[in-house]
Amino acid sequence: MTNYNKAIVLVSGGLDSTTTLAIAKDLGFDCYALSFNYGQRHISEINAAKKIAATYNVLDHKVINLDMGQIGGSALTDSNIDVPEVSSEGIPITYVPARNTIFLSYALAWAEVIDANDIFIGVNAVDYSGYPDCRPEYIKAYEQLATLATKAGVEGASFKIHTPLIELSKAEIIQKGISLDVDYGLTVSCYQADEKGKACGVCDSCRFRKEGFETAKIADPTYYK
Amino acid sequence: MTNYNKAIVLVSGGLDSTTTLAIAKDLGFDCYALSFNYGQRHISEINAAKKIAATYNVLDHKVINLDMGQIGGSALTDSNIDVPEVSSEGIPITYVPARNTIFLSYALAWAEVIDANDIFIGVNAVDYSGYPDCRPEYIKAYEQLATLATKAGVEGASFKIHTPLIELSKAEIIQKGISLDVDYGLTVSCYQADEKGKACGVCDSCRFRKEGFETAKIADPTYYK
Repeated sequence: MTNYNKAIVLVSGGLDSTTTLAIAKDLGFDCYALSFNYGQRHISEINAAKKIAATYNVLDHKVINLDMGQIGGSALTDSNIDVPEVSSEGIPITYVPARNTIFLSYALAWAEVIDANDIFIGVNAVDYSGYPDCRPEYIKAYEQLATLATKAGVEGASFKIHTPLIELSKAEIIQKGISLDVDYGLTVSCYQADEKGKACGVCDSCRFRKEGFETAKIADPTYYK
Repeated sequence: MTNYNKAIVLVSGGLDSTTTLAIAKDLGFDCYALSFNYGQRHISEINAAKKIAATYNVLDHKVINLDMGQIGGSALTDSNIDVPEVSSEGIPITYVPARNTIFLSYALAWAEVIDANDIFIGVNAVDYSGYPDCRPEYIKAYEQLATLATKAGVEGASFKIHTPLIELSKAEIIQKGISLDVDYGLTVSCYQADEKGKACGVCDSCRFRKEGFETAKIADPTYYK
């Protein structure tokens, strides 16, 4: 299947966003990869994102530096808050305030510049049920905002935020990716991976990933510390 | 009038946002000033923002570095595009793609961290009628998004984006500010001010400002080159 639409794809270097990129490519979109260096502890994710963007022959890959450490409020961006090994009730401390809203805003800005109306983001409402900005109603509200926020919208276009993983379990995401030949050995999901991309194996993100491979009955290619 | 609500106020160093800060203070909000260094040509605006934030005794002032030059697409952030002296039809080239969406997203992130539900932004639908993200319907959509995007929203709170200038002419904004003792000599509006904050006098922003002082019959304190 081929079409000639341009799409911005948010690529973090993790399992979900890599699967999302594979899906966008498979749908025939001309993909522009967008990554963020936001003071997350796992900088090796950015290195993974670069390799993945290259592997998928994206038309362009931008890595935007975000000044989110100043804002704080999350274990992922504030070095005074420890990453927990066991997730707590409610919204986890690894939630970064308004993170997806900021990510999507940059994606929207780039979409305006390159004249794209499609944005792909690998949010998931199953594993990250506590994150408000991973819910379908949030994505719907963002689409409405995007159309009102932009020249393209004023001129009659509408924006589509594609969330192909939103209702999938981790195992289903992995099965989908494997069917599209994703090499998960390239991806880094750990909240506190080392500079070589080796994973801790105990944080929420590692647990979800590990269980996903087990449930999908696919060999886990993750490099653990 | 006094209440004890916290508010994030977007303070650019220009005339509109300074008036907005004065209004937020007058309403009794505890103000947190937020500025952005986004590769705009007029860095002297940031210096003005710092002076203004100090003058108004804000509880905190953050200047966030935004990596928008990479995105491009505007005369304000792309050095390959000249700032025009005469505005063209439609959406001006000084429009920065998704700028207010990005600004508001950082404001929302900070609001979550300090537990504020109020954000003030000095957008104006009169002078900047061509900017999609200065329209009331855009602001309304952002409020809906903000409520869905955040922990506070999930827990039942709602966000209010205050736009006290949205329907005012420049002269009315100036009259409002003068009634609140705003010192407009501190403010810099020019799209291409020099490092000392001296204004060109010919760009759209300068023209709107100059005409505003004339119409309001108030002496123009702007330093021109």
